[in-house]
Amino acid sequence: MTAPTQSSPKFMRIGVFDSGFGGLTVLRSLLSQIPTAEYFYLGDTARLPYGSKSRATVARYAVESARLLESYGAQYLVIACNTASALALDAIRAVAKVPVLGVIETGADSASVSSATRDVLVLATDATVQSHAYAQACTDRGLRAIEVPCPLLVPLIEEGWTDNGATGSTTGDITRQVLRVYLDQAMAEAKARAYNLDTILLGCTHYPLLRPTLEATVSGKMTILDSAETTARRVRQQLQTKDRNDSGGIPDPRCHFFATDSVEKFRTLGSRFLGQPIDKVELVDRGG
Amino acid sequence: MTAPTQSSPKFMRIGVFDSGFGGLTVLRSLLSQIPTAEYFYLGDTARLPYGSKSRATVARYAVESARLLESYGAQYLVIACNTASALALDAIRAVAKVPVLGVIETGADSASVSSATRDVLVLATDATVQSHAYAQACTDRGLRAIEVPCPLLVPLIEEGWTDNGATGSTTGDITRQVLRVYLDQAMAEAKARAYNLDTILLGCTHYPLLRPTLEATVSGKMTILDSAETTARRVRQQLQTKDRNDSGGIPDPRCHFFATDSVEKFRTLGSRFLGQPIDKVELVDRGG
Repeated sequence: MTAPTQSSPKFMRIGVFDSGFGGLTVLRSLLSQIPTAEYFYLGDTARLPYGSKSRATVARYAVESARLLESYGAQYLVIACNTASALALDAIRAVAKVPVLGVIETGADSASVSSATRDVLVLATDATVQSHAYAQACTDRGLRAIEVPCPLLVPLIEEGWTDNGATGSTTGDITRQVLRVYLDQAMAEAKARAYNLDTILLGCTHYPLLRPTLEATVSGKMTILDSAETTARRVRQQLQTKDRNDSGGIPDPRCHFFATDSVEKFRTLGSRFLGQPIDKVELVDRGG
Repeated sequence: MTAPTQSSPKFMRIGVFDSGFGGLTVLRSLLSQIPTAEYFYLGDTARLPYGSKSRATVARYAVESARLLESYGAQYLVIACNTASALALDAIRAVAKVPVLGVIETGADSASVSSATRDVLVLATDATVQSHAYAQACTDRGLRAIEVPCPLLVPLIEEGWTDNGATGSTTGDITRQVLRVYLDQAMAEAKARAYNLDTILLGCTHYPLLRPTLEATVSGKMTILDSAETTARRVRQQLQTKDRNDSGGIPDPRCHFFATDSVEKFRTLGSRFLGQPIDKVELVDRGG
Protein backbone atom coordinates (compact mmCIF):
# COMPACT_ATOMS: atom_id res chain seq x y z
CA MET A 1 0.00 0.00 0.00
CA THR A 2 1.41 3.39 -0.87
CA ALA A 3 0.84 6.54 1.12
CA PRO A 4 -1.73 8.87 -0.40
CA THR A 5 -0.21 11.67 -2.46
CA GLN A 6 -0.36 14.91 -0.52
CA SER A 7 0.37 18.30 -1.97
CA SER A 8 3.30 19.95 -0.21
CA PRO A 9 2.15 22.59 2.24
CA LYS A 10 3.43 26.07 1.58
CA PHE A 11 5.10 26.29 4.98
CA MET A 12 7.08 23.74 6.96
CA ARG A 13 4.64 22.12 9.37
CA ILE A 14 5.98 21.44 12.86
CA GLY A 15 3.98 19.44 15.38
CA VAL A 16 4.60 20.18 19.06
CA PHE A 17 3.28 17.81 21.67
CA ASP A 18 3.01 18.18 25.44
CA SER A 19 0.82 16.77 28.17
CA GLY A 20 -0.36 20.31 28.91
CA PHE A 21 0.73 23.95 28.73
CA GLY A 22 4.43 23.75 29.60
CA GLY A 23 5.40 22.89 26.04
CA LEU A 24 4.15 26.33 25.03
CA THR A 25 7.50 27.69 26.31
CA VAL A 26 9.10 25.48 23.65
CA LEU A 27 6.67 26.74 21.03
CA ARG A 28 7.46 30.31 22.12
CA SER A 29 11.17 29.70 21.48
CA LEU A 30 10.38 27.94 18.19
CA LEU A 31 8.32 30.91 16.99
CA SER A 32 11.25 33.17 17.69
CA GLN A 33 13.86 30.85 16.14
CA ILE A 34 11.81 29.66 13.14
CA PRO A 35 9.14 32.29 12.41
CA THR A 36 8.38 30.93 8.95
CA ALA A 37 6.96 27.56 10.02
CA GLU A 38 3.34 26.62 10.67
CA TYR A 39 2.83 25.07 14.11
CA PHE A 40 0.37 22.47 15.37
CA TYR A 41 0.41 22.31 19.16
CA LEU A 42 -1.37 19.50 20.99
CA GLY A 43 -1.79 19.59 24.78
CA ASP A 44 -3.19 16.35 26.18
CA THR A 45 -4.80 18.30 29.02
CA ALA A 46 -7.47 15.68 29.71
CA ARG A 47 -4.84 13.20 30.79
CA LEU A 48 -2.19 15.40 32.41
CA PRO A 49 -0.04 15.11 34.37
CA TYR A 50 1.87 12.29 32.70
CA GLY A 51 4.38 12.33 35.58
CA SER A 52 2.39 10.01 37.80
CA LYS A 53 1.64 7.48 35.07
CA SER A 54 3.43 4.30 34.04
CA ARG A 55 5.74 3.99 31.03
CA ALA A 56 3.19 1.90 29.11
CA THR A 57 0.38 4.41 29.70
CA VAL A 58 2.54 7.42 28.79
CA ALA A 59 3.77 5.65 25.65
CA ARG A 60 0.23 4.84 24.56
CA TYR A 61 -0.92 8.44 25.07
CA ALA A 62 2.16 9.93 23.39
CA VAL A 63 2.00 7.62 20.36
CA GLU A 64 -1.68 8.48 19.84
CA SER A 65 -0.84 12.18 20.02
CA ALA A 66 2.08 11.89 17.62
CA ARG A 67 -0.17 10.11 15.12
CA LEU A 68 -2.76 12.86 15.45
CA LEU A 69 -0.16 15.55 14.74
CA GLU A 70 1.06 13.57 11.71
CA SER A 71 -2.52 13.38 10.48
CA TYR A 72 -2.56 17.21 10.57
CA GLY A 73 0.38 17.16 8.19
CA ALA A 74 3.26 17.68 10.65
CA GLN A 75 6.59 17.10 8.89
CA TYR A 76 8.59 17.26 12.09
CA LEU A 77 7.61 16.38 15.66
CA VAL A 78 8.88 18.05 18.81
CA ILE A 79 8.09 16.16 22.01
CA ALA A 80 8.00 19.19 24.32
CA CYS A 81 7.19 17.09 27.37
CA ASN A 82 9.91 15.78 29.62
CA THR A 83 7.97 12.76 30.81
CA ALA A 84 7.04 11.69 27.27
CA SER A 85 10.61 12.35 26.10
CA ALA A 86 11.92 10.23 28.99
CA LEU A 87 9.47 7.35 28.71
CA ALA A 88 8.10 7.27 25.18
CA LEU A 89 10.59 8.70 22.66
CA ASP A 90 11.54 5.28 21.28
CA ALA A 91 7.90 4.26 21.02
CA ILE A 92 7.05 7.46 19.13
CA ARG A 93 10.04 7.10 16.78
CA ALA A 94 9.02 3.50 16.08
CA VAL A 95 5.69 4.61 14.60
CA ALA A 96 6.38 8.14 13.32
CA LYS A 97 7.11 8.68 9.64
CA VAL A 98 8.78 12.07 10.28
CA PRO A 99 11.77 13.14 12.41
CA VAL A 100 11.07 13.26 16.15
CA LEU A 101 13.01 15.36 18.65
CA GLY A 102 12.76 15.10 22.45
CA VAL A 103 13.66 17.76 25.00
CA ILE A 104 15.95 15.57 27.11
CA GLU A 105 18.57 14.78 24.49
CA THR A 106 18.76 18.42 23.38
CA GLY A 107 19.10 19.52 27.00
CA ALA A 108 21.91 17.08 27.68
CA ASP A 109 23.65 18.09 24.44
CA SER A 110 23.65 21.74 25.36
CA ALA A 111 24.84 20.95 28.91
CA SER A 112 27.71 19.04 27.34
CA VAL A 113 28.66 22.11 25.29
CA SER A 114 28.28 24.46 28.27
CA SER A 115 29.90 22.61 31.17
CA ALA A 116 33.64 22.99 31.74
CA THR A 117 33.66 21.04 35.01
CA ARG A 118 31.46 18.28 33.47
CA ASP A 119 29.24 18.40 36.58
CA VAL A 120 25.65 19.44 35.94
CA LEU A 121 22.61 20.09 38.12
CA VAL A 122 19.27 18.99 36.69
CA LEU A 123 16.11 20.49 38.20
CA ALA A 124 13.00 18.59 37.15
CA THR A 125 9.70 17.11 38.26
CA ASP A 126 9.50 14.05 40.43
CA ALA A 127 8.64 11.76 37.53
CA THR A 128 11.44 13.02 35.30
CA VAL A 129 13.99 12.58 38.08
CA GLN A 130 12.68 9.10 38.88
CA SER A 131 13.15 8.10 35.25
CA HIS A 132 16.82 9.20 35.50
CA ALA A 133 16.61 9.99 31.80
CA TYR A 134 18.67 13.19 32.21
CA ALA A 135 21.32 11.42 34.31
CA GLN A 136 21.61 8.73 31.64
CA ALA A 137 21.75 11.26 28.80
CA CYS A 138 24.44 13.17 30.76
CA THR A 139 26.47 10.02 31.42
CA ASP A 140 26.30 9.21 27.70
CA ARG A 141 27.96 12.58 27.06
CA GLY A 142 30.68 12.25 29.71
CA LEU A 143 28.90 14.46 32.23
CA ARG A 144 28.01 13.76 35.85
CA ALA A 145 24.55 14.87 36.92
CA ILE A 146 22.83 15.60 40.19
CA GLU A 147 19.08 15.43 39.70
CA VAL A 148 16.85 17.26 42.18
CA PRO A 149 13.06 16.83 42.05
CA CYS A 150 11.27 20.17 42.50
CA PRO A 151 7.58 19.23 42.57
CA LEU A 152 6.43 22.56 44.00
CA LEU A 153 7.76 24.69 41.16
CA VAL A 154 5.09 23.75 38.61
CA PRO A 155 2.17 24.71 40.87
CA LEU A 156 3.95 27.92 41.96
CA ILE A 157 4.46 28.85 38.30
CA GLU A 158 0.90 27.92 37.35
CA GLU A 159 -0.29 30.14 40.22
CA GLY A 160 1.77 33.01 38.89
CA TRP A 161 3.67 33.30 42.19
CA THR A 162 6.75 34.49 40.37
CA ASP A 163 7.85 38.08 40.32
CA ASN A 164 10.75 37.65 37.93
CA GLY A 165 13.39 38.32 40.55
CA ALA A 166 11.90 41.63 41.70
CA THR A 167 11.83 41.94 45.46
CA GLY A 168 9.02 42.83 47.77
CA SER A 169 6.09 40.56 46.87
CA THR A 170 5.08 37.98 49.46
CA THR A 171 4.30 35.33 46.89
CA GLY A 172 7.50 35.90 44.91
CA ASP A 173 9.37 35.68 48.21
CA ILE A 174 7.77 32.30 48.94
CA THR A 175 8.86 31.04 45.52
CA ARG A 176 12.43 32.21 46.19
CA GLN A 177 12.42 30.34 49.53
CA VAL A 178 11.15 27.18 47.86
CA LEU A 179 13.83 27.46 45.18
CA ARG A 180 16.43 27.99 47.92
CA VAL A 181 15.31 24.75 49.64
CA TYR A 182 15.84 22.80 46.41
CA LEU A 183 19.17 24.50 45.64
CA ASP A 184 20.46 23.90 49.18
CA GLN A 185 19.57 20.26 48.76
CA ALA A 186 21.47 20.18 45.46
CA MET A 187 24.53 21.90 46.93
CA ALA A 188 24.59 19.53 49.92
CA GLU A 189 24.50 16.57 47.57
CA ALA A 190 27.19 18.10 45.34
CA LYS A 191 29.40 18.63 48.39
CA ALA A 192 28.86 15.08 49.63
CA ARG A 193 29.77 13.66 46.22
CA ALA A 194 32.56 16.22 45.57
CA TYR A 195 30.92 17.47 42.36
CA ASN A 196 31.82 20.90 41.03
CA LEU A 197 28.58 22.11 39.44
CA ASP A 198 28.83 24.87 36.83
CA THR A 199 25.61 24.37 34.84
CA ILE A 200 21.95 24.16 35.78
CA LEU A 201 19.72 22.38 33.32
CA LEU A 202 16.02 23.25 33.62
CA GLY A 203 14.49 19.84 33.01
CA CYS A 204 10.86 20.95 32.91
CA THR A 205 9.14 23.05 30.28
CA HIS A 206 7.47 25.17 32.98
CA TYR A 207 10.74 26.34 34.47
CA PRO A 208 11.70 29.00 31.88
CA LEU A 209 9.06 31.20 33.54
CA LEU A 210 11.14 30.98 36.72
CA ARG A 211 14.39 31.81 35.03
CA PRO A 212 14.71 35.44 36.25
CA THR A 213 13.99 34.34 39.84
CA LEU A 214 16.56 31.57 39.52
CA GLU A 215 19.15 33.93 38.07
CA ALA A 216 18.64 36.24 41.03
CA THR A 217 19.06 33.32 43.44
CA VAL A 218 22.12 31.42 42.17
CA SER A 219 25.70 32.54 41.78
CA GLY A 220 26.53 34.25 38.50
CA LYS A 221 29.14 31.59 37.81
CA MET A 222 26.42 29.06 37.03
CA THR A 223 25.14 28.75 33.47
CA ILE A 224 21.38 28.20 33.29
CA LEU A 225 20.07 26.24 30.31
CA ASP A 226 16.41 25.80 29.55
CA SER A 227 14.93 23.08 27.41
CA ALA A 228 12.71 25.47 25.47
CA GLU A 229 15.62 27.46 24.11
CA THR A 230 17.96 24.52 23.51
CA THR A 231 15.26 22.49 21.77
CA ALA A 232 14.20 25.33 19.47
CA ARG A 233 17.82 25.95 18.51
CA ARG A 234 18.26 22.26 17.68
CA VAL A 235 15.13 22.16 15.53
CA ARG A 236 16.40 25.15 13.57
CA GLN A 237 19.79 23.47 13.05
CA GLN A 238 18.19 20.25 11.87
CA LEU A 239 15.75 21.95 9.51
CA GLN A 240 18.48 24.05 7.91
CA THR A 241 20.02 20.85 6.63
CA LYS A 242 16.74 19.67 5.11
CA ASP A 243 14.65 20.78 2.18
CA ARG A 244 12.28 23.49 3.30
CA ASN A 245 8.91 24.05 1.69
CA ASP A 246 8.33 27.47 3.10
CA SER A 247 8.21 30.47 0.84
CA GLY A 248 10.00 32.78 3.24
CA GLY A 249 6.74 34.49 4.23
CA ILE A 250 4.90 34.06 7.51
CA PRO A 251 1.96 31.63 7.67
CA ASP A 252 -1.34 32.99 8.93
CA PRO A 253 -2.32 31.69 11.41
CA ARG A 254 1.10 30.57 12.51
CA CYS A 255 -0.19 28.35 15.30
CA HIS A 256 -3.06 25.92 15.59
CA PHE A 257 -3.86 24.81 19.14
CA PHE A 258 -5.51 21.56 20.16
CA ALA A 259 -6.35 20.38 23.68
CA THR A 260 -8.05 17.24 24.92
CA ASP A 261 -9.92 19.10 27.67
CA SER A 262 -10.38 22.50 29.39
CA VAL A 263 -10.14 24.70 26.31
CA GLU A 264 -10.84 27.76 28.47
CA LYS A 265 -8.05 26.96 30.93
CA PHE A 266 -5.71 26.32 28.01
CA ARG A 267 -6.41 29.77 26.63
CA THR A 268 -6.00 31.56 29.96
CA LEU A 269 -3.02 29.73 31.43
CA GLY A 270 -1.41 28.95 28.08
CA SER A 271 -1.10 32.61 27.10
CA ARG A 272 1.29 33.14 30.02
CA PHE A 273 3.51 30.29 28.84
CA LEU A 274 3.39 31.33 25.21
CA GLY A 275 3.92 35.00 26.02
CA GLN A 276 1.10 36.07 23.70
CA PRO A 277 -2.67 35.69 23.62
CA ILE A 278 -4.16 32.39 22.45
CA ASP A 279 -7.42 33.03 20.65
CA LYS A 280 -8.65 29.72 19.37
CA VAL A 281 -8.18 26.28 20.87
CA GLU A 282 -9.82 23.27 19.32
CA LEU A 283 -11.11 20.51 21.56
CA VAL A 284 -9.97 17.04 20.54
CA ASP A 285 -11.98 14.20 22.04
CA ARG A 286 -9.64 11.30 22.72
CA GLY A 287 -12.20 9.17 24.52
CA GLY A 288 -9.74 9.08 27.49
CA MET B 1 -33.53 -9.95 33.92
CA THR B 2 -33.11 -10.41 37.66
CA ALA B 3 -29.92 -9.69 39.56
CA PRO B 4 -27.90 -12.77 40.47
CA THR B 5 -28.48 -14.02 44.02
CA GLN B 6 -25.55 -13.08 46.20
CA SER B 7 -24.93 -14.44 49.68
CA SER B 8 -24.79 -11.64 52.26
CA PRO B 9 -21.23 -10.78 53.20
CA LYS B 10 -20.38 -11.22 56.88
CA PHE B 11 -19.37 -7.58 57.24
CA MET B 12 -20.91 -4.40 55.88
CA ARG B 13 -19.05 -3.58 52.69
CA ILE B 14 -18.30 0.10 52.11
CA GLY B 15 -16.84 1.32 48.84
CA VAL B 16 -14.73 4.49 48.96
CA PHE B 17 -13.87 6.27 45.76
CA ASP B 18 -11.38 9.05 45.07
CA SER B 19 -9.34 10.25 42.11
CA GLY B 20 -6.20 9.52 44.13
CA PHE B 21 -4.88 9.34 47.68
CA GLY B 22 -6.71 12.19 49.41
CA GLY B 23 -9.78 10.05 50.05
CA LEU B 24 -7.62 7.92 52.33
CA THR B 25 -8.13 10.60 55.00
CA VAL B 26 -11.85 9.81 54.70
CA LEU B 27 -11.12 6.08 54.93
CA ARG B 28 -8.95 6.78 57.99
CA SER B 29 -11.87 8.49 59.72
CA LEU B 30 -14.25 5.73 58.59
CA LEU B 31 -11.98 3.05 60.08
CA SER B 32 -12.04 4.89 63.37
CA GLN B 33 -15.81 5.55 63.33
CA ILE B 34 -16.93 2.18 61.88
CA PRO B 35 -14.23 -0.39 62.66
CA THR B 36 -16.46 -3.35 61.90
CA ALA B 37 -16.95 -2.72 58.18
CA GLU B 38 -14.96 -4.09 55.26
CA TYR B 39 -13.64 -1.34 52.97
CA PHE B 40 -12.95 -1.27 49.24
CA TYR B 41 -10.95 1.81 48.30
CA LEU B 42 -10.48 2.76 44.66
CA GLY B 43 -8.06 5.53 43.67
CA ASP B 44 -8.29 6.43 39.99
CA THR B 45 -4.62 7.43 40.01
CA ALA B 46 -4.14 6.93 36.26
CA ARG B 47 -6.57 9.74 35.54
CA LEU B 48 -5.99 12.15 38.41
CA PRO B 49 -6.35 15.00 38.94
CA TYR B 50 -10.03 15.27 38.13
CA GLY B 51 -9.90 18.98 38.93
CA SER B 52 -8.79 20.03 35.47
CA LYS B 53 -11.32 17.89 33.63
CA SER B 54 -14.79 18.66 32.33
CA ARG B 55 -18.03 17.63 34.00
CA ALA B 56 -18.77 15.00 31.34
CA THR B 57 -15.32 13.42 31.66
CA VAL B 58 -15.40 13.39 35.47
CA ALA B 59 -18.91 11.91 35.44
CA ARG B 60 -17.86 9.15 33.05
CA TYR B 61 -14.82 8.24 35.18
CA ALA B 62 -16.75 8.41 38.45
CA VAL B 63 -19.65 6.31 37.19
CA GLU B 64 -17.25 3.62 35.93
CA SER B 65 -15.52 3.58 39.31
CA ALA B 66 -18.78 3.40 41.25
CA ARG B 67 -19.84 0.42 39.12
CA LEU B 68 -16.54 -1.29 39.79
CA LEU B 69 -16.95 -0.86 43.55
CA GLU B 70 -20.49 -2.22 43.33
CA SER B 71 -19.15 -5.23 41.44
CA TYR B 72 -16.88 -5.86 44.46
CA GLY B 73 -20.01 -6.08 46.59
CA ALA B 74 -20.06 -2.55 48.06
CA GLN B 75 -23.37 -1.95 49.86
CA TYR B 76 -22.69 1.74 50.40
CA LEU B 77 -20.62 4.19 48.36
CA VAL B 78 -18.66 7.13 49.71
CA ILE B 79 -17.50 9.59 47.05
CA ALA B 80 -14.43 10.84 48.90
CA CYS B 81 -13.44 13.19 46.10
CA ASN B 82 -14.56 16.80 46.09
CA THR B 83 -14.47 17.17 42.31
CA ALA B 84 -16.49 14.00 41.73
CA SER B 85 -18.91 14.99 44.52
CA ALA B 86 -19.30 18.42 42.91
CA LEU B 87 -19.65 17.31 39.30
CA ALA B 88 -20.84 13.72 39.26
CA LEU B 89 -22.93 12.87 42.33
CA ASP B 90 -26.23 12.92 40.46
CA ALA B 91 -24.77 10.82 37.64
CA ILE B 92 -23.48 8.24 40.13
CA ARG B 93 -26.77 8.14 42.05
CA ALA B 94 -28.62 7.64 38.76
CA VAL B 95 -26.81 4.35 38.11
CA ALA B 96 -25.90 3.07 41.59
CA LYS B 97 -28.10 0.44 43.25
CA VAL B 98 -26.80 1.32 46.74
CA PRO B 99 -26.79 4.54 48.81
CA VAL B 100 -24.22 7.13 47.69
CA LEU B 101 -22.78 9.86 49.90
CA GLY B 102 -20.65 12.79 48.72
CA VAL B 103 -18.26 14.88 50.78
CA ILE B 104 -19.70 18.27 49.84
CA GLU B 105 -23.19 17.82 51.25
CA THR B 106 -21.83 16.38 54.51
CA GLY B 107 -19.37 19.27 54.79
CA ALA B 108 -22.09 21.86 54.25
CA ASP B 109 -24.37 20.08 56.75
CA SER B 110 -21.75 20.18 59.46
CA ALA B 111 -20.95 23.82 58.71
CA SER B 112 -24.63 24.57 59.14
CA VAL B 113 -24.60 22.91 62.57
CA SER B 114 -21.37 24.65 63.59
CA SER B 115 -21.77 28.22 62.38
CA ALA B 116 -23.49 30.74 64.64
CA THR B 117 -22.77 33.72 62.37
CA ARG B 118 -23.92 31.73 59.28
CA ASP B 119 -20.77 32.93 57.45
CA VAL B 120 -18.39 30.19 56.42
CA LEU B 121 -14.96 30.08 54.75
CA VAL B 122 -14.39 27.21 52.33
CA LEU B 123 -10.79 26.34 51.43
CA ALA B 124 -10.60 24.07 48.41
CA THR B 125 -8.85 23.33 45.14
CA ASP B 126 -9.28 25.50 42.09
CA ALA B 127 -11.68 23.10 40.42
CA THR B 128 -13.87 22.69 43.48
CA VAL B 129 -14.11 26.46 43.93
CA GLN B 130 -14.87 26.97 40.26
CA SER B 131 -17.75 24.51 40.50
CA HIS B 132 -19.17 26.62 43.40
CA ALA B 133 -20.66 23.40 44.71
CA TYR B 134 -19.85 24.34 48.33
CA ALA B 135 -21.29 27.84 47.93
CA GLN B 136 -24.48 26.34 46.52
CA ALA B 137 -24.70 23.72 49.26
CA CYS B 138 -24.13 26.47 51.86
CA THR B 139 -26.79 28.73 50.32
CA ASP B 140 -29.22 25.79 50.40
CA ARG B 141 -28.65 25.63 54.17
CA GLY B 142 -28.99 29.36 54.84
CA LEU B 143 -25.25 29.98 55.06
CA ARG B 144 -23.09 32.48 53.20
CA ALA B 145 -19.79 31.16 51.94
CA ILE B 146 -16.51 32.67 50.83
CA GLU B 147 -14.63 30.16 48.72
CA VAL B 148 -10.86 30.53 48.39
CA PRO B 149 -8.92 28.35 45.95
CA CYS B 150 -5.67 27.06 47.53
CA PRO B 151 -3.95 25.18 44.69
CA LEU B 152 -0.55 25.07 46.41
CA LEU B 153 -1.72 23.17 49.46
CA VAL B 154 -2.07 19.77 47.80
CA PRO B 155 1.50 19.74 46.43
CA LEU B 156 2.88 21.05 49.76
CA ILE B 157 1.07 18.25 51.59
CA GLU B 158 2.14 15.61 49.07
CA GLU B 159 5.72 16.84 49.55
CA GLY B 160 5.38 16.43 53.30
CA TRP B 161 6.25 20.11 53.86
CA THR B 162 4.06 20.20 56.93
CA ASP B 163 5.44 20.12 60.42
CA ASN B 164 2.12 19.96 62.22
CA GLY B 165 2.38 23.45 63.65
CA ALA B 166 5.80 22.91 65.26
CA THR B 167 8.13 25.82 64.65
CA GLY B 168 11.62 25.93 63.26
CA SER B 169 11.56 23.93 60.02
CA THR B 170 12.13 25.89 56.81
CA THR B 171 9.66 23.84 54.81
CA GLY B 172 6.96 24.00 57.48
CA ASP B 173 7.55 27.73 57.64
CA ILE B 174 6.99 28.03 53.88
CA THR B 175 3.70 26.15 54.21
CA ARG B 176 2.60 28.51 56.99
CA GLN B 177 3.40 31.52 54.78
CA VAL B 178 1.40 30.03 51.89
CA LEU B 179 -1.53 29.37 54.21
CA ARG B 180 -1.26 32.95 55.48
CA VAL B 181 -1.49 34.28 51.88
CA TYR B 182 -4.72 32.34 51.33
CA LEU B 183 -6.18 33.32 54.73
CA ASP B 184 -5.32 37.01 54.20
CA GLN B 185 -7.11 36.82 50.86
CA ALA B 186 -10.14 35.29 52.60
CA MET B 187 -10.18 37.90 55.36
CA ALA B 188 -9.90 40.75 52.83
CA GLU B 189 -12.85 39.34 50.93
CA ALA B 190 -14.83 38.82 54.15
CA LYS B 191 -14.16 42.45 55.14
CA ALA B 192 -15.19 43.76 51.71
CA ARG B 193 -18.43 41.80 51.84
CA ALA B 194 -19.03 42.42 55.59
CA TYR B 195 -19.10 38.68 56.38
CA ASN B 196 -18.42 37.52 59.92
CA LEU B 197 -16.66 34.19 59.43
CA ASP B 198 -16.66 31.74 62.34
CA THR B 199 -16.15 28.40 60.58
CA ILE B 200 -13.53 27.08 58.15
CA LEU B 201 -14.60 24.16 56.02
CA LEU B 202 -11.70 22.14 54.58
CA GLY B 203 -13.08 21.36 51.14
CA CYS B 204 -10.34 19.02 50.04
CA THR B 205 -9.54 15.57 51.33
CA HIS B 206 -5.83 16.39 51.49
CA TYR B 207 -6.29 19.24 53.92
CA PRO B 208 -6.80 17.24 57.15
CA LEU B 209 -3.02 16.66 57.07
CA LEU B 210 -2.61 20.42 57.37
CA ARG B 211 -5.05 20.80 60.23
CA PRO B 212 -2.48 21.29 63.04
CA THR B 213 -0.67 23.95 60.96
CA LEU B 214 -3.98 25.66 60.24
CA GLU B 215 -5.00 25.55 63.90
CA ALA B 216 -1.70 27.22 64.82
CA THR B 217 -2.30 29.93 62.20
CA VAL B 218 -5.92 30.99 62.66
CA SER B 219 -7.65 32.53 65.64
CA GLY B 220 -8.98 30.07 68.21
CA LYS B 221 -12.46 31.48 67.68
CA MET B 222 -12.72 29.76 64.30
CA THR B 223 -14.13 26.24 64.13
CA ILE B 224 -12.28 24.04 61.62
CA LEU B 225 -14.28 21.26 59.97
CA ASP B 226 -12.74 18.65 57.75
CA SER B 227 -14.61 16.58 55.21
CA ALA B 228 -12.99 13.32 56.31
CA GLU B 229 -14.36 13.55 59.83
CA THR B 230 -17.77 14.94 58.92
CA THR B 231 -18.30 12.36 56.17
CA ALA B 232 -17.32 9.41 58.35
CA ARG B 233 -19.66 10.59 61.07
CA ARG B 234 -22.51 10.86 58.57
CA VAL B 235 -21.88 7.36 57.21
CA ARG B 236 -22.03 5.97 60.74
CA GLN B 237 -25.30 7.80 61.43
CA GLN B 238 -26.85 6.51 58.21
CA LEU B 239 -25.72 2.93 58.71
CA GLN B 240 -27.03 2.83 62.27
CA THR B 241 -30.51 3.26 60.88
CA LYS B 242 -30.03 0.38 58.42
CA ASP B 243 -29.76 -3.38 58.77
CA ARG B 244 -26.16 -4.30 59.40
CA ASN B 245 -24.71 -7.64 58.36
CA ASP B 246 -21.61 -7.45 60.44
CA SER B 247 -21.13 -9.87 63.30
CA GLY B 248 -19.53 -7.33 65.59
CA GLY B 249 -16.05 -8.71 64.91
CA ILE B 250 -13.39 -7.05 62.79
CA PRO B 251 -12.92 -8.16 59.16
CA ASP B 252 -9.45 -9.28 58.14
CA PRO B 253 -8.23 -7.63 56.00
CA ARG B 254 -10.32 -4.60 56.77
CA CYS B 255 -9.26 -2.73 53.66
CA HIS B 256 -8.79 -3.67 50.03
CA PHE B 257 -6.96 -1.10 47.92
CA PHE B 258 -7.26 -0.65 44.17
CA ALA B 259 -5.48 1.88 41.99
CA THR B 260 -5.57 2.47 38.24
CA ASP B 261 -1.83 3.26 38.08
CA SER B 262 1.33 3.77 40.15
CA VAL B 263 0.75 1.05 42.74
CA GLU B 264 4.12 1.82 44.32
CA LYS B 265 3.37 5.52 44.72
CA PHE B 266 -0.03 4.66 46.14
CA ARG B 267 1.59 2.51 48.80
CA THR B 268 4.23 5.11 49.75
CA LEU B 269 2.21 8.30 49.62
CA GLY B 270 -1.07 6.70 50.63
CA SER B 271 0.29 5.44 53.94
CA ARG B 272 0.78 9.05 55.08
CA PHE B 273 -2.83 9.89 54.29
CA LEU B 274 -4.19 6.72 55.86
CA GLY B 275 -1.95 7.01 58.91
CA GLN B 276 -0.95 3.35 58.69
CA PRO B 277 1.06 1.20 56.29
CA ILE B 278 -0.58 0.01 53.09
CA ASP B 279 0.73 -3.40 52.16
CA LYS B 280 -1.14 -4.54 49.13
CA VAL B 281 -2.55 -2.45 46.29
CA GLU B 282 -4.17 -4.11 43.32
CA LEU B 283 -3.72 -2.53 39.89
CA VAL B 284 -6.98 -2.09 37.97
CA ASP B 285 -6.56 -1.52 34.26
CA ARG B 286 -9.24 0.88 33.11
CA GLY B 287 -7.95 1.25 29.57
CA GLY B 288 -7.81 5.05 30.23
